[in-house]
Amino acid sequence: MEKHNNGSSTGTLYVVGTGPGSAENMTVAAINALKMSDIIIGYKTYLELIPEFLEGKEVISSEMMKEVDRCGKALEYADLGKTIALVCGGDPGIYAMAGLVFEMAQKAKNSCKIEILPGLAAINSCAARLGAPLMHDFAAVSLSDLLTPWLLIEKRLEAVAMADFVTAIYNPKSKKRTEQIVRAREIFLKHRSPETVVGIVTAATRENEKIIVTTLKELLENEIGMQSTVIIGNSQTYRWNDLMITPRGYSDKYQI
Amino acid sequence: MEKHNNGSSTGTLYVVGTGPGSAENMTVAAINALKMSDIIIGYKTYLELIPEFLEGKEVISSEMMKEVDRCGKALEYADLGKTIALVCGGDPGIYAMAGLVFEMAQKAKNSCKIEILPGLAAINSCAARLGAPLMHDFAAVSLSDLLTPWLLIEKRLEAVAMADFVTAIYNPKSKKRTEQIVRAREIFLKHRSPETVVGIVTAATRENEKIIVTTLKELLENEIGMQSTVIIGNSQTYRWNDLMITPRGYSDKYQI
Repeated sequence: MEKHNNGSSTGTLYVVGTGPGSAENMTVAAINALKMSDIIIGYKTYLELIPEFLEGKEVISSEMMKEVDRCGKALEYADLGKTIALVCGGDPGIYAMAGLVFEMAQKAKNSCKIEILPGLAAINSCAARLGAPLMHDFAAVSLSDLLTPWLLIEKRLEAVAMADFVTAIYNPKSKKRTEQIVRAREIFLKHRSPETVVGIVTAATRENEKIIVTTLKELLENEIGMQSTVIIGNSQTYRWNDLMITPRGYSDKYQI
Repeated sequence: MEKHNNGSSTGTLYVVGTGPGSAENMTVAAINALKMSDIIIGYKTYLELIPEFLEGKEVISSEMMKEVDRCGKALEYADLGKTIALVCGGDPGIYAMAGLVFEMAQKAKNSCKIEILPGLAAINSCAARLGAPLMHDFAAVSLSDLLTPWLLIEKRLEAVAMADFVTAIYNPKSKKRTEQIVRAREIFLKHRSPETVVGIVTAATRENEKIIVTTLKELLENEIGMQSTVIIGNSQTYRWNDLMITPRGYSDKYQI
């Protein structure tokens, strides 16, 4: 892919999506970007999932919530002419760091080249592990109200519940935030049957992966954590064996 | 990844996402699935993008709209004990063939193993080429009314326009379907400023790639075709150089 933001610096910042967290589930382009980089910067947990790409590199790892620091360092080193990989779990463009990189580069007038290497987001990998839950019109909503007013999140949940979207819930629950998923379920129950199929995927494709297919009624009786994505089916979604399947059509125009 | 639907047949059907259309943008797991397969089945246009994986394989390619035939053949051969790759452009789970495969396997009582290998969907690769247009809550809506009643599509557009979702429009326009994007724009203009930033990505990452950053007002003055995805920004999305950026926060809790 071509690079964005052609500036005067000879450095390059690759914003690299590592997908659910292993070399196998990364794209060839993302792997190549890591190999070409002098310095690899990322959140500790994501870097630990790809140890084979860190050997012989300068590695700057940091804790969660230090996104602004990580972005700032990545841009600073790239401006000095280095080739940097800023690692994001999932896809940099979906609830990750692509936006912050551009926001900061604009304010700091950085002149390095910036290239986004997309990866499999939770929405891609969790769907594949559940069978075929998306398949039709869908929405993604994060329940984290750290940077978004809760009233806007409720308005969005209400809108997509009412219009029968398959809905992927990002950041459903953390140790401190436990009430948002309770409220989200209430909103969906106003518009959808308690028997609506719901999938919960925790740590997709990793060693500790856990896949649950349940219903809106029983959603809260299941384990939901920091590594979970919740996918609420639409009115047509059904369960078959251990799978969650949304038919592609509302009509029966094709015969199968 | 583990396989779904453990049956009595020794055959395996891999449903493989090839992403925007080159080996570089596929995952290692998807490439490996193609290599392990005896027979590769897919829509002609997608197979032509990955010639290096077809050598020495039995290849069954077919025209568009023959999805049911392709799925049926893939399941039939897998049931006979073969290893089959059914190729989808993008991600099999997003407006592609994962759902149809399970729907048909269920009805025909197929007993082969089925594994979905996710790929970069248009939503991932087009976003990366535009900069960072998603970043916040987003929805995907297809304007094709072949299998979905148009009134439901309108209801969905209305819902996500009203609730300020970044919205990715799949299948915005074809030679025969030209009025749906006109109506979609009208619906968004009821809820969003004419200056709302809109991205149009055609043939992302391919030789004939075309990237346009425009506004809701001027959307229809631009070329939109069968290979285009349209991404409508939310109220906070802005343009910077040739990029489309949605800030990650509605509040200013973090200092950059």
